[in-house]
Amino acid sequence: MKKIRAAIIGYGNIGKSVLEALQSATDFEVVGVVRRSSSAKNNPIELSGITVTDDISKLNVVDVAIVCSPSRSVPEQVTSILKLGINTVDSYDIHSSIWDYKKEIDPLAQKHDAVAIIAAGWDPGSDSVIRALMEAMAPKGITYTNFGPGMSMGHTVAVKGITGVKKALSMTIPLGTSVHRRMVYVEIEEGYNYDEVAQAIKTDAYFAKDETHVLQVESVDSLIDMGHGVSISRKGVSGVTYNQLFEFNMKINNPSLTAQILVSCARATMKTTPGVYTMIEIPMINMLCGEKEELVRRLV
Amino acid sequence: MKKIRAAIIGYGNIGKSVLEALQSATDFEVVGVVRRSSSAKNNPIELSGITVTDDISKLNVVDVAIVCSPSRSVPEQVTSILKLGINTVDSYDIHSSIWDYKKEIDPLAQKHDAVAIIAAGWDPGSDSVIRALMEAMAPKGITYTNFGPGMSMGHTVAVKGITGVKKALSMTIPLGTSVHRRMVYVEIEEGYNYDEVAQAIKTDAYFAKDETHVLQVESVDSLIDMGHGVSISRKGVSGVTYNQLFEFNMKINNPSLTAQILVSCARATMKTTPGVYTMIEIPMINMLCGEKEELVRRLV
Repeated sequence: MKKIRAAIIGYGNIGKSVLEALQSATDFEVVGVVRRSSSAKNNPIELSGITVTDDISKLNVVDVAIVCSPSRSVPEQVTSILKLGINTVDSYDIHSSIWDYKKEIDPLAQKHDAVAIIAAGWDPGSDSVIRALMEAMAPKGITYTNFGPGMSMGHTVAVKGITGVKKALSMTIPLGTSVHRRMVYVEIEEGYNYDEVAQAIKTDAYFAKDETHVLQVESVDSLIDMGHGVSISRKGVSGVTYNQLFEFNMKINNPSLTAQILVSCARATMKTTPGVYTMIEIPMINMLCGEKEELVRRLV
Repeated sequence: MKKIRAAIIGYGNIGKSVLEALQSATDFEVVGVVRRSSSAKNNPIELSGITVTDDISKLNVVDVAIVCSPSRSVPEQVTSILKLGINTVDSYDIHSSIWDYKKEIDPLAQKHDAVAIIAAGWDPGSDSVIRALMEAMAPKGITYTNFGPGMSMGHTVAVKGITGVKKALSMTIPLGTSVHRRMVYVEIEEGYNYDEVAQAIKTDAYFAKDETHVLQVESVDSLIDMGHGVSISRKGVSGVTYNQLFEFNMKINNPSLTAQILVSCARATMKTTPGVYTMIEIPMINMLCGEKEELVRRLV
């Protein structure tokens, strides 16, 4: 069997987990890792034996690039890779911009005969599939997505940006009906006042609309746990029958799951026509390794 | 907006619920109901004003036929409808034969430029989508599908076929790890012995491998409840990260949910290329009513 030749773009938490997921899959081979040249000098041990470069065009025949850069730099990265006619997957997670991002790169994918699967993480991503399926089962009703308990990457970065904060961790606590509490753990820089820092966090745009608690701790590092979770529930109407109840729960390691979904979607890019897709626009079977007959017999 | 013209084939529990789901959807119109000629003389009140016929070819322009006949007659019905170039959906539920059924009718769909979505209920159907998604998220691991508590149509029919049984209800009780108990409630025909009937049920092929309890009751009718449920769980591995936990639960009215999924899949037949598909082979978005932009913005 010809293996799918994948490159990893960016090597943080997600990139490292993508490498693990690719190495665990029998139908992929890792062509190389693309890092900024400054980072490439300090490659961790697991990258020994793997080509590390600062430019994807230096790699030999890439079928699909798995983009693991921070969301704000994803559209630019994906744009330049699609221009090379290479498929891409990313876990771009700025919900409000996904449609515009999709529309913007679609002509490029068509022109260069490439496939991009975007917003392919767990939310947006697998949670989006669950929400769509629940709506297909009960078109009228309300779906609630409850995150956590778990570390919010976006909120943690926001806290770190506030003056006087040395280290930070923002935990998302689900209160039900899509309402969340933010538990913020901080180490304060010397010379700064806890009350003022706490006030600055609570009034930041990221936190202003949620119930937020700020706690000063000795060591943020000792609190970090990459576990996360979600609970999605829908009560809705099938036809004229009310009170149809659906629920999806998961407890997962956050970067590992995101990485695995990226890899599964990388596989799916090889099985569809040129264009840009979110996960609700691709058939689930395309994400799976194996023959169609075996998968239908086993899973349907 | 041009509405999708749907015909209902067969008018039992599912057919009735399909009519309700079609009438609740803004993008469908009901062209007619196809019943055996003997049944058509006794049409229930909700069919007044709706064309009822014994032959789909007597109906005027059908886009999609929603086949609500018992599973064993589904392949024959679907075959004859595809030959007319009309799309079909069905909830054929004999798991072991789905692949062969699909292969058999695929050339027909291709030849007549039609789309068939098969095995489109909740299991097989939406549960299949959940199982496929969970496997995409954690490729290694075990998925358990636990049914109930709820009435098993297949097992109930099997009990009714046993000599000495007047009326019957077989309930499926989940014991976890895909193991189920069968609670069978029976009214016994006069002149028959409870112990002998119970023994015949317990040794029937449908029940022999499960823990089965047979209870004699005064009135089976007073126990009937169309509610059902499922709990699907997977503990698996994303990349090299163990103990990823996923769970899907639902509590639903059985015929209403099956009917709603049939109608959502009927919509999906209008958005894909000729051929035969199970639900894991179609994108979730195709099952939903609305513009792609609005759906992506709201659900992704």
